[in-house]
Amino acid sequence: MPNEKLISPRKLSGFMELSPSKQVVFDEMVDKIKQVFKTNCFMPIDTPVLELSEILLAKSGGEIDKEVYHFKKGDTDICMRYDLTVPLARYVAMNSESLSFPFKRYQIGKVYRGERAQKGRFREFYQCDADIIGNENLPIPADAECINLVDKVFKALNIDIINHISNRNILFGYCEALGLKDKCNDILIYLDKIAKIGKENTLKEIINLDVSKEKAVKLVSIVEKCGSFDKVLSEIDSLTDNELYQKGINELKELSKILNAMNIDQNKVVLDIGIIRGQNYYTGTVFEAVVHSHPEFGTVCGGGRYDNLAGYFTDKKLPGVGMSVGLTRLFDQLDNNNMLPAYPVSTTKLVIIPLDNTLEECFSLCTQFKENGVYAEVNYSERSFKAKMKDANKREIPFVMIVGEKEVDSKIYSLKNMATSEQKQLSFNESLSEILKHYNNQ
Amino acid sequence: MPNEKLISPRKLSGFMELSPSKQVVFDEMVDKIKQVFKTNCFMPIDTPVLELSEILLAKSGGEIDKEVYHFKKGDTDICMRYDLTVPLARYVAMNSESLSFPFKRYQIGKVYRGERAQKGRFREFYQCDADIIGNENLPIPADAECINLVDKVFKALNIDIINHISNRNILFGYCEALGLKDKCNDILIYLDKIAKIGKENTLKEIINLDVSKEKAVKLVSIVEKCGSFDKVLSEIDSLTDNELYQKGINELKELSKILNAMNIDQNKVVLDIGIIRGQNYYTGTVFEAVVHSHPEFGTVCGGGRYDNLAGYFTDKKLPGVGMSVGLTRLFDQLDNNNMLPAYPVSTTKLVIIPLDNTLEECFSLCTQFKENGVYAEVNYSERSFKAKMKDANKREIPFVMIVGEKEVDSKIYSLKNMATSEQKQLSFNESLSEILKHYNNQ
Repeated sequence: MPNEKLISPRKLSGFMELSPSKQVVFDEMVDKIKQVFKTNCFMPIDTPVLELSEILLAKSGGEIDKEVYHFKKGDTDICMRYDLTVPLARYVAMNSESLSFPFKRYQIGKVYRGERAQKGRFREFYQCDADIIGNENLPIPADAECINLVDKVFKALNIDIINHISNRNILFGYCEALGLKDKCNDILIYLDKIAKIGKENTLKEIINLDVSKEKAVKLVSIVEKCGSFDKVLSEIDSLTDNELYQKGINELKELSKILNAMNIDQNKVVLDIGIIRGQNYYTGTVFEAVVHSHPEFGTVCGGGRYDNLAGYFTDKKLPGVGMSVGLTRLFDQLDNNNMLPAYPVSTTKLVIIPLDNTLEECFSLCTQFKENGVYAEVNYSERSFKAKMKDANKREIPFVMIVGEKEVDSKIYSLKNMATSEQKQLSFNESLSEILKHYNNQ
Repeated sequence: MPNEKLISPRKLSGFMELSPSKQVVFDEMVDKIKQVFKTNCFMPIDTPVLELSEILLAKSGGEIDKEVYHFKKGDTDICMRYDLTVPLARYVAMNSESLSFPFKRYQIGKVYRGERAQKGRFREFYQCDADIIGNENLPIPADAECINLVDKVFKALNIDIINHISNRNILFGYCEALGLKDKCNDILIYLDKIAKIGKENTLKEIINLDVSKEKAVKLVSIVEKCGSFDKVLSEIDSLTDNELYQKGINELKELSKILNAMNIDQNKVVLDIGIIRGQNYYTGTVFEAVVHSHPEFGTVCGGGRYDNLAGYFTDKKLPGVGMSVGLTRLFDQLDNNNMLPAYPVSTTKLVIIPLDNTLEECFSLCTQFKENGVYAEVNYSERSFKAKMKDANKREIPFVMIVGEKEVDSKIYSLKNMATSEQKQLSFNESLSEILKHYNNQ
């Protein structure tokens, strides 16, 4: 008879929740990304998930986007963070006296966007962000450092990407040079959509902005430039001597030199003038990485340069550059395409099974294995020996040790390699080296 | 002239936010705890911060505690998790078919309690939880495994604790034996307060429950029993032959044997019949760890055995045992008492300073250092050489490498040990071994 008082266990839709095995893989990816950030001298911060609405909505003048989770607690208006950038701005503005600049920080944490649930979109997802914030100024090598992070992060994850890089000053300056300065933002919106809506429609939309066909064709043609830095730069560097345009060209040239010095694989970066990145706040370098074999994943990592991080909170001018990986979505895409590394059913390497009345000896042995770095456990359940062996098999445990009274007396134990079914009579030390050998071969 | 449009950057009160330096230490503590959980064959899960209110409030019949952050999004009633146990119950109930039991999981994550802000209390804090969930039954060695985790976690953190252990069946059974079964829960509430309200007041309150003075004295006297397992067990094991009481005694005896086999330092665990742990859901083993030198910190880690994890969500009987560290509060206490390990101003081990026009060479060298595991960076700011040296000094960077055109030509670089002020002319490889030597000595 079913219990009618039971509440059906469900989670909110649009929230990722993994099996323990897949979580192991996810956590390893986080660890690898973290290690890249650390090696590159970025330091961690961990801001709260909740912020005062006044702070989080400063940019929109307090208007609440319907995506943002917000609520009142007592008299306090609270929002859940929807990215890690606004909290960073608040943090840097609050602590600017004690931080040393350039301030290189990373933060890996969950952010919240209550958008309509759809495949591949999550309402709670991990962002892995690294930013460099300057005080008053920040030279171009900082941009190279962020692009280097992208390269190293995806190398660490063993994912083959191509990072498409541009500099927004190119298009800003080009619009200026064509006498279209006041229409520049609208033009960029359509140029940004070219991959979605196609070349012809983009042309049409730009002409609709009261731009001559000739100029529209020029604009569409420059955003189609994509290739090696040397090639694209040589094609576009003298299109106009507009000051902003030439600033963009010079920044790209400097960037390219440093990227070379950093020994970044030249096949992994392209100069792609079509990279715009919708958000208005990018002011110079911009980049978007795509997975080489799976362009349909879209941008798996993006970032760029912004002139002023915390203008809502402080008079200090704090230019920055950053990169961000949306890990939850990426993980989901890898999973759906069978591109995750092999994940273990269990992380346990050794199960010790007591026979007769040897539980204490089993725990004593288990402690010694763990002290030597082996993930070991005792199967102390009340099930039969056969059931325990079957369980170890099902969980794909590599080694099982069987400990009966005879083994306790002789201190020679039966170690079974579950993959080969080979069973050996070994001392503790011999067992340990057998298991560690297996570890090291993995 | 101050900008009047600025929003004063503030965070919500009661939310911990650390400097990057202290965050490094916090993260290292998390990593150490995680490593203990892993070594002991616990696997990770990561449930959402948000849950359906119906799920999170199942226990209270839907009533919302004023501590819980909750809100509506569209038609959905949502709560922020206030612990990791209810989400675990939901997770296990949802996935019981695919999990293998005993299911050993750890989760380290933020939980939310909007209680009145006060010193040492946080509204957002990390819980580090490890639990073992059985299917239908779970033998006592599981309790020993959790107590072992407490021991190993605090060893890893280099914090000297004493874990006070008891078994609630002792007091349940003793009340039964004294004919006070129906008053048992009320009696336990007062016995739990003895440290706070004192022995005399406890006696008074219990007598007020219509308990004879003689029995009240017996009850207060048994909760005062505290010492080594052998000593306390010999004092109390034949106080009554009540079945529940003897079940408690037998469970404690078995527990003690396994803890010995696990080689847990006998000075780090005591049998303390006064440990009750308010929450009603504990049904057997209970424990609370205190810091040896700072009992005023209170319980820094607690846990115990519960008969049924997920009774609200499933008919399956899922007994469990778990432990939990409230890391945010513990970190705050350690910090306030200068008990944190030394934390670095910066994690950078080497700053490379370009002289003349050597930026590219600096980045090339920096890449090689990083590939060899050295946290290295180039100081590419536009400040003077002197200012850069001063900055490295202020940030307590151990090594500075100075690279001018001469150094680029000769491939012999100036490596300065900032602590000793010694400056050596070294090749890349010599510099690397000098720096790695320093790493290994730390």
